[in-house]
Amino acid sequence: MAKDKKLVEQITARDVDFAQWYTDIVTKAELADYSCVRGCMVIRPYGYAIWENMKQDLDRRFKATGHENVAMPMFIPESLLQKEKDHVQGFAPEVAWVTHGGDALLPERLCVRPTSETLFCDHYARIIQSYRDLPKLYNQWCSVVRWEKTTRPFLRTMEFFWQEGHTVHETAEEAIAETERMLNVYADFLREVLAIPVIKGRKTDKEKFAGAEMTYTVEALMHDGKALQSGTSHYFGDGFARAFGIQFSDRENKLQYCHETSWGMSTRVIGAMIMVHSDDSGLVLPPRVAPVQIMLIPIAMHKDGVLPAVFALRDRLQKASYGFRVKVDASDKMPGWKFSEQEMRGIPLRLEMGPRDIEQGSVVAVRRDTGAKTILPLEGIEDALAKLLDEIHADMLARAEKHLAEHCYKVTTYDEFKDTVANRPGFIEAAWCGDVGCEEQIKADTGATSRCMPFSKEKPDEGAFCVCCGRPAKHNVYWGKAY
Amino acid sequence: MAKDKKLVEQITARDVDFAQWYTDIVTKAELADYSCVRGCMVIRPYGYAIWENMKQDLDRRFKATGHENVAMPMFIPESLLQKEKDHVQGFAPEVAWVTHGGDALLPERLCVRPTSETLFCDHYARIIQSYRDLPKLYNQWCSVVRWEKTTRPFLRTMEFFWQEGHTVHETAEEAIAETERMLNVYADFLREVLAIPVIKGRKTDKEKFAGAEMTYTVEALMHDGKALQSGTSHYFGDGFARAFGIQFSDRENKLQYCHETSWGMSTRVIGAMIMVHSDDSGLVLPPRVAPVQIMLIPIAMHKDGVLPAVFALRDRLQKASYGFRVKVDASDKMPGWKFSEQEMRGIPLRLEMGPRDIEQGSVVAVRRDTGAKTILPLEGIEDALAKLLDEIHADMLARAEKHLAEHCYKVTTYDEFKDTVANRPGFIEAAWCGDVGCEEQIKADTGATSRCMPFSKEKPDEGAFCVCCGRPAKHNVYWGKAY
Repeated sequence: MAKDKKLVEQITARDVDFAQWYTDIVTKAELADYSCVRGCMVIRPYGYAIWENMKQDLDRRFKATGHENVAMPMFIPESLLQKEKDHVQGFAPEVAWVTHGGDALLPERLCVRPTSETLFCDHYARIIQSYRDLPKLYNQWCSVVRWEKTTRPFLRTMEFFWQEGHTVHETAEEAIAETERMLNVYADFLREVLAIPVIKGRKTDKEKFAGAEMTYTVEALMHDGKALQSGTSHYFGDGFARAFGIQFSDRENKLQYCHETSWGMSTRVIGAMIMVHSDDSGLVLPPRVAPVQIMLIPIAMHKDGVLPAVFALRDRLQKASYGFRVKVDASDKMPGWKFSEQEMRGIPLRLEMGPRDIEQGSVVAVRRDTGAKTILPLEGIEDALAKLLDEIHADMLARAEKHLAEHCYKVTTYDEFKDTVANRPGFIEAAWCGDVGCEEQIKADTGATSRCMPFSKEKPDEGAFCVCCGRPAKHNVYWGKAY
Repeated sequence: MAKDKKLVEQITARDVDFAQWYTDIVTKAELADYSCVRGCMVIRPYGYAIWENMKQDLDRRFKATGHENVAMPMFIPESLLQKEKDHVQGFAPEVAWVTHGGDALLPERLCVRPTSETLFCDHYARIIQSYRDLPKLYNQWCSVVRWEKTTRPFLRTMEFFWQEGHTVHETAEEAIAETERMLNVYADFLREVLAIPVIKGRKTDKEKFAGAEMTYTVEALMHDGKALQSGTSHYFGDGFARAFGIQFSDRENKLQYCHETSWGMSTRVIGAMIMVHSDDSGLVLPPRVAPVQIMLIPIAMHKDGVLPAVFALRDRLQKASYGFRVKVDASDKMPGWKFSEQEMRGIPLRLEMGPRDIEQGSVVAVRRDTGAKTILPLEGIEDALAKLLDEIHADMLARAEKHLAEHCYKVTTYDEFKDTVANRPGFIEAAWCGDVGCEEQIKADTGATSRCMPFSKEKPDEGAFCVCCGRPAKHNVYWGKAY
């Protein structure tokens, strides 16, 4: 029983030590483990199953918007990385360099991709000749490597898993529309699948992607009031196309440079999901990504008829058109242990079924997110469970929305700004002159960075002044401390 | 029309230059392209869609046999790679070494994984304590890197995609049963999905995996009579467990070493699929992996009612419970061009639909594999198409089986052996004394290697002699030249 005990032992309380609480959940819910490679994690079966569910849903959304998957090499020759000036400046300091193949020194160093713009551009230059070849809407699922100094499971690891979309278009308008479309795909996915509401907006020049003309972002708010950038979408203009010579004959048979985008979402969102929804009993999983949505727990399971009834219900639910992911915990442990284990693992619903329930033709359903108990008649239970899972999702989203709304603060003076960062963690809405000097000053003074210029309100109030320098404001910005 | 022309231009004939024919198909069917990284390829959307279909089917088989997916780091510290002596000797000469992170020299070199036994063992040593933790049945989908000198798309590339299963068991018997189970999963997949028959057997000590006690293999025969190792499954005994200290308390509470296996199948099988089935008109895809199974081609498509009827049929087929993957080619090209394009891309069935067909309530179905035409009434066409696709699969398999049977030669003398290798490419069945010296002699004299000791007949005939040295034989072996 030593192993069982470990699972259900007390985890650090969320309000006592948020960072330790997070680490406890990652390890005790067996999502990931540390590896022997500095800064790299092992994603364990339960964590990987969550990522597979996310991938499957995102991939469906990408294909529904016309994208195709491809695979590029994992290496980038040094000369290729250097082709786009801003891009190499942004990434070269944090890449892993391969210098030897077997015993032989390589004639040119290869970096392990930190992102694949350069590889996609090289390929696009080979295969694009005419406007008839456009658009190209490619995506890649892979892992990338960035040589980070401090790392935390899912939130920041040297190697991480992601998808990177890379698209090529005839016109700037088309490329910008793609950049916006994919940001909306991310926002919809986070809301509809992970029950995470986000602020959509544009990054300042200081915070945008290396080589991009514009970076769009979806920013989520964690339970501790810090922001987490959960997906980004970049518009490159024709900068990469000029650097890599990606040209096409247009409809008038003139050579033109293409317009490009890229967009990515990573295993970081698993960290976001944990930090938005989980609690002091462990993980709380949104039903649509939970590897097990419903756990059946037999009560007095050695009594005649209990186990057969429980397995019969499992078989019935597995056959239901809703596609429930359902399991039975028929292990030797006491029901109380099992309840704690399923709570630690964040399983959205547990169904308790004992002799009395069987007699009454019902089960006891217990929600992970609220602990609420309901008695569900077996007749029509499929519809009731589907409805209950949808309600759990809606309620989780509503609580996250309330938390977000309650942690957005609008300020006009720098004193208010500093006081809010120090005492009321969350998003701070404040006007800005557009000068990178003020952005740097704010970061130095408070630790807060510009998260985005929100689409919902890009312009500052009429006559507003920069919260830092007092000059007339050009932008309305959400600021905050961030992961 | 320049682009269209390229697709349908003559490819090198298979019997004139098999290697060039293969490369032509890979590039002209747009499965893969060369990249700027030596020895690495770009897998293009059409090639990647085939791999996705393979992955999905294999993954289902792995999960149905109780396996779970995980993700290990892509790097292996040099000291970890060195823990198992035979393993490091086999792989160290062909790995890529990372020596720098950003500007800093690493305290210890990391290799890019050529295979992940060492990483799995390190993790297993952390998480396994008791017999209750066993078995562990993990699998990983990833890419690995081996520093190959000569490379060819899919068949041998420096980076390639694969899955690697790694399992841990209480007993040798269980581990051996797992090794056999997964070899059968591979054989079934190749037969049922890729229509490729295989010879199942055991590798000789010379040909087994570095660190394995036994390696099982499935060997397929290509159209040119060369063999291709299409999947392998290894039994490690407790060798890795001893090297990495993976111990568990058994049912009597005594510490024991675990028994392990690993097994892998890679993107090489895409190469096998091409070289078994394709022909002088291009790729021929087995229906169960074809990204597009049915291509609808409108005839006289500008005539009233043709396009609407074609799209109505597409919609109807997409809704069918068979899950057909179906598309319409409504581009501006002539039907003849379209036929050639779909042939190059290996689409199993094309349906031609013009005014006369619409009038008669039927379509013309043309098989890619045989060119046979059938008129199919629209009424009940779903069932007819499902049956036709199954027939195509069965016929492709039957042809591959016939080819395999016709290219297996049993010989008893060394002269016969040499003559067969030189003039009748295929599998050569010949008895062997078990001495690695004879294996090396045969390879030096003829270029043929031992492919496997077939399960169907492991023992040589009563009183048989080694085909090389003439001493009494211990094993019956299939020999051949191989990719």
